[in-house]
Amino acid sequence: MRKIILDLAVSLDGFIEGPHGETDWCVMPDAADPGTGSPFDRFLSGIDTIFYGRVSYDLWGQYQPDTGASGEALKLWKGVHSKSKYVFTNTPTPDSDKATYITSNIAESVQAIKNKPGKDIWLYGGASLITTFINLGLIDTYQLAVHPVLLVSGKPLFANVKTRVGLTLNHVVSSKSGVILLQYDAR
Amino acid sequence: MRKIILDLAVSLDGFIEGPHGETDWCVMPDAADPGTGSPFDRFLSGIDTIFYGRVSYDLWGQYQPDTGASGEALKLWKGVHSKSKYVFTNTPTPDSDKATYITSNIAESVQAIKNKPGKDIWLYGGASLITTFINLGLIDTYQLAVHPVLLVSGKPLFANVKTRVGLTLNHVVSSKSGVILLQYDAR
Repeated sequence: MRKIILDLAVSLDGFIEGPHGETDWCVMPDAADPGTGSPFDRFLSGIDTIFYGRVSYDLWGQYQPDTGASGEALKLWKGVHSKSKYVFTNTPTPDSDKATYITSNIAESVQAIKNKPGKDIWLYGGASLITTFINLGLIDTYQLAVHPVLLVSGKPLFANVKTRVGLTLNHVVSSKSGVILLQYDAR
Repeated sequence: MRKIILDLAVSLDGFIEGPHGETDWCVMPDAADPGTGSPFDRFLSGIDTIFYGRVSYDLWGQYQPDTGASGEALKLWKGVHSKSKYVFTNTPTPDSDKATYITSNIAESVQAIKNKPGKDIWLYGGASLITTFINLGLIDTYQLAVHPVLLVSGKPLFANVKTRVGLTLNHVVSSKSGVILLQYDAR
């Protein structure tokens, strides 16, 4: 069955943003480094669907890079925007041609999507949607890019999770940049 | 110069104990696994001094395993008890023949100890002493054994740290047990 994959960057002390939304602490991968050359390209090619919270979708769901952006960035965003998109929100919202809105019965709705044939699904975030998914036991795989910094404050990745989650380590890749890619399956 | 090394086990979400002091989530290393066979033996052989907070020292500083404990455990504790011990506390306490008490001027006292010849120094904990050391910029090396679990509550490793700490990744070792040993130097 297709998997739901949490994939994001986190500081060593577990923050996904600084206290004012900063992401300046994210080390850029070294393209010449086989460890993390273009893991995101590989990740994108394995998924065909993205789950967003409403705030994250409004910020990033239809983001278009500047026309002056690098070929790499344009290709990345084109890849992201080629996926099917679902937006989870408490506010009833009609579907658009770009996204399907899910406003209730999250567990059942997600199970129905998983039961359709397709590639894996990227759980994009934000933090509150991730917490909801963890508490409902809906995340199959945790992929974290651990960046070499103690951020000490900001938005924590794992807040308000209710019960302990056992994990099985699948894969570790470190890179010259100091970023470590970790992949775990939920037990 | 000798280094001050933080070395402890942490859950993927950054806790060092469960809400009731639980450490049952710590996966035991597989002795047959070259990745983590006996890294603690190697670590102990590289240090000659241990720094404790008062509570940690009272709990563990003179701990003696049961006479029925394994040869491995007896050897481990004999190794720990062969080191010089310093206890950091706000309560004036006379030195014993087993430990030296440091009750003020932490930064200066630690610098004086580092200036003496010797092997590296293990910052044992607990959490509040670790926070003090991070905030004073006294930790040279962070060695974390990241265990494959989201503990979701308990005592966080990195609480009340005041400013961002940049790190340089030195070393990553993963093991069949799912534990990942990470080593960073503070920048």
